[in-house]
Amino acid sequence: MTRITARRRVTRITVGQPARTREDVLAVEEPLEIRVGGRSLAITMRTPGHDVDLAIGFLVSEGVIGRGDDVRTARYCAGATDEGVNTYNVLDVALSPGVPAPDPSLERNFFTTSSCGLCGKASIDAVRTSSRYSVADDDFRLDPALLVTFPDRLRAQQAVFERTGGLHAAGLFDARTGEMLVLREDVGRHNAVDKVVGWAAKEGLLPLRSMVLMVSGRASFELTQKASMAGIPMLAAVSAPSSLAAELATELGMTLVGFLRGDSMVVYSGAHRLGDPDAADADGSARSDDSAPAALQTGANA
Amino acid sequence: MTRITARRRVTRITVGQPARTREDVLAVEEPLEIRVGGRSLAITMRTPGHDVDLAIGFLVSEGVIGRGDDVRTARYCAGATDEGVNTYNVLDVALSPGVPAPDPSLERNFFTTSSCGLCGKASIDAVRTSSRYSVADDDFRLDPALLVTFPDRLRAQQAVFERTGGLHAAGLFDARTGEMLVLREDVGRHNAVDKVVGWAAKEGLLPLRSMVLMVSGRASFELTQKASMAGIPMLAAVSAPSSLAAELATELGMTLVGFLRGDSMVVYSGAHRLGDPDAADADGSARSDDSAPAALQTGANA
Repeated sequence: MTRITARRRVTRITVGQPARTREDVLAVEEPLEIRVGGRSLAITMRTPGHDVDLAIGFLVSEGVIGRGDDVRTARYCAGATDEGVNTYNVLDVALSPGVPAPDPSLERNFFTTSSCGLCGKASIDAVRTSSRYSVADDDFRLDPALLVTFPDRLRAQQAVFERTGGLHAAGLFDARTGEMLVLREDVGRHNAVDKVVGWAAKEGLLPLRSMVLMVSGRASFELTQKASMAGIPMLAAVSAPSSLAAELATELGMTLVGFLRGDSMVVYSGAHRLGDPDAADADGSARSDDSAPAALQTGANA
Repeated sequence: MTRITARRRVTRITVGQPARTREDVLAVEEPLEIRVGGRSLAITMRTPGHDVDLAIGFLVSEGVIGRGDDVRTARYCAGATDEGVNTYNVLDVALSPGVPAPDPSLERNFFTTSSCGLCGKASIDAVRTSSRYSVADDDFRLDPALLVTFPDRLRAQQAVFERTGGLHAAGLFDARTGEMLVLREDVGRHNAVDKVVGWAAKEGLLPLRSMVLMVSGRASFELTQKASMAGIPMLAAVSAPSSLAAELATELGMTLVGFLRGDSMVVYSGAHRLGDPDAADADGSARSDDSAPAALQTGANA
């Protein structure tokens, strides 16, 4: 069974002090495919656990069922990954007799291939194969003392948030000068990032080499994916990242920073861009038996 | 042009003090339909403004385009609502010559009818017609002094959040006893709510009459919709709601509470359930010319 938390080696950087490597605990994010009668209905990125509750609640929310009796069974798909491991990430719901199947128009379609072996790795591979830009070779150094000024500058520009308390913000900073190029706010964090990327595309700035994407909340798989698609080599968040965000960033050679508050931060991948000479050793998941990914070795050697 | 913020009459309740009505500012949430070459690709709930950036950034994120030059034009659909008002909520992107149209498998399908007049009201109507349960007649009184204890009790049970800082929580409380029935955590706030509703469905508890859904973050249109589909009459959030969440709650006769912190809260609709005798007068948007909705009058008269 997939776990709810994952352990990972991270680098803690506080301005004016040596970087320190330690183990940290992250909330796990993994895809769940919900099927009804064998037919795929939706894929959602979720924290494993209570998956049957999630699937049934999703069906209530979508109006497919109105009560628990409308579901006959809910079973994990018996398929497995190439390595022979059941991912517990595909759940098939059988409706009770007389309950109409969901309207086919409800069906979501995704570029991720939805096999029984659906897992975080498949999601990462899907991003990697669809990305036009590589960030691994985008090597630069950003002084942590400059990076820690970004959250306050983001907040200072959040005009609407100040009045409503209801908006996420995303800002684009030039790592070479520290200048903030653009800030966008939205009720949806993914929309705020799309607005930043869209502005940059209009300005002819893609890929966004040597840029930092700063977000006001947490760093999910989806935000890391969006940064990758725009060629952004560094994602910094005020709050925590998910496990899959950290894994994707590591695979891509992207620098991922979380808990960027006061004069400190936690670096989940690519710490070499923040001046940590041991970054290539420190990076990577404690779950993994692999040595440091090639992307990071490239960064450290450059 | 749709506005970024909306003014609204709200009720501020502090334990031990008389309820006060005042005007408040909310972040606007409205649907945006993104079309490519006249064909619908996605609908997202967003804060209006920089919509062209949002559409272009979305197309970059989905891998449809790689640079700004790939887009020839982006124009609002000229259609209008029944009242003859352009909603500026449908944006059609024309790709440049030689840029392949998006894979049809990328297309999202939604139960909301996507006319040119797509607007918040249409989204609200879609929820109303698909809801099996009515919450307007679910009348009860909850002492604000009991409600203000919910956030701490939610937080106390958030085992995974304590270790990772990375999870949203949703909890279900019985308004009659104050008992917390279930708590679920997830990297996605919508998943946490689906897990709560799915648990309740399995237990045979739908519709969730006289229940309060408590969430750790903000209250969006989507969360309000999920509460409605499960027949939950009260949604309480630690942070701000969006404008459309408040409008949907008002239309449905649901009580919506935001900024539930310390010993106070802001009530955006259905304040009669929290003992405010003037609730039927105070509720409703300052933008609206309507008198208080029938659902609220029912509540106040009962």
